[in-house]
Amino acid sequence: CDEIFLETYTSVWKGDLKKLNLKFKKIERVDLEENINKILTIAKEKKVAILIPGDPLIATTHNSILEEAMKMKIKFEIIHNASILTAISETGLQIYKFGKIASISWYYSEYPYDVLKQNKKIKAHTLFLLDTSPKPMSPKEGLKRLLEIEEKRKESLINKESFCIVASELGSKNKKILFGKIKEMLDINFVPAVIIIPSDLHFSEKKFLSSLKNLKI
Amino acid sequence: CDEIFLETYTSVWKGDLKKLNLKFKKIERVDLEENINKILTIAKEKKVAILIPGDPLIATTHNSILEEAMKMKIKFEIIHNASILTAISETGLQIYKFGKIASISWYYSEYPYDVLKQNKKIKAHTLFLLDTSPKPMSPKEGLKRLLEIEEKRKESLINKESFCIVASELGSKNKKILFGKIKEMLDINFVPAVIIIPSDLHFSEKKFLSSLKNLKI
Repeated sequence: CDEIFLETYTSVWKGDLKKLNLKFKKIERVDLEENINKILTIAKEKKVAILIPGDPLIATTHNSILEEAMKMKIKFEIIHNASILTAISETGLQIYKFGKIASISWYYSEYPYDVLKQNKKIKAHTLFLLDTSPKPMSPKEGLKRLLEIEEKRKESLINKESFCIVASELGSKNKKILFGKIKEMLDINFVPAVIIIPSDLHFSEKKFLSSLKNLKI
Repeated sequence: CDEIFLETYTSVWKGDLKKLNLKFKKIERVDLEENINKILTIAKEKKVAILIPGDPLIATTHNSILEEAMKMKIKFEIIHNASILTAISETGLQIYKFGKIASISWYYSEYPYDVLKQNKKIKAHTLFLLDTSPKPMSPKEGLKRLLEIEEKRKESLINKESFCIVASELGSKNKKILFGKIKEMLDINFVPAVIIIPSDLHFSEKKFLSSLKNLKI
């Protein structure tokens, strides 16, 4: 590649490009959203790579870039990567039992609660991704947000006695998987992390989670 | 590693281990299910790797191996990989709008139809994985199966006029993404492939799919 751009706002970047001896430019959200034409104009002439933590195209931003590239008739290639969306299978929860995914962001939105409601309707587990910008949201803050919306909406979807799973850095040596009731998780401050609110847990899923607990915590 | 096992029944293996100069043993489904203790007994003494196409732990089999390993107090490490579960974002469909995933297998089961029904209820897209064993199922065979169940159940979930997406080898140079009505897909025979039955398509999703069609087919 002639130019390499690195995006680090959708997730925490753990790679080390210096080890690979690669020259790169860090870019911000605004460069990929409002100012994407700058990068695409370069891509008209030169080979350009945009590096992204996790699997690309999961964030809507990256999808829009492809649309623009197609309009400008720029050829592109997508290289997939491991993603939290499948890494959550380390919790022992069946990936087939997950429903829609939701992000909990710093700006107030009841959308995550609506997704939980939809998933509950079809007995699906819900994965919540936590906002990373301007600072990463902790499990504590994410759970508090869900309880706040419950407080307001009173639809009895979730309370402090509900089971939840908090997972951090899956696939790495620092991975943590915590399983318990929400009330036990209200002081969990580590980041990056995701929250899973499971639907009815199968006996074997519970057993797996409990055995993880013994091994990992 | 002292011993490397390669599993190739959950998906098509496209890697080339000979290039990496790795010695490995091909294993079958039965080696990972009924006879897994054989491999775990070796793992008690030696460093063992089990290679899997796609992200590990997506198939229930692989999850059970971890459970057994924990029982036997064998330390393990999981290395995640790109997966069809996120690669489907190449279709331009929002990953956040997908519901539960289902597999269509050669043995008759109405489970995929039930999942479609659940997902429709919450306006979620449905990803169908197609059986790979004893031979890979084609999109044509998968779609026919869904129409057959509709014929029997008559719940008006799906018909020949429904939109569907057929995707093959995403993330590779040979990728194919077809978008159209089911009746237009009933002679699609290539494998490996997955089928997506979308819920209501957003205008921008439709536009993206249509532009892909122009570019790729």
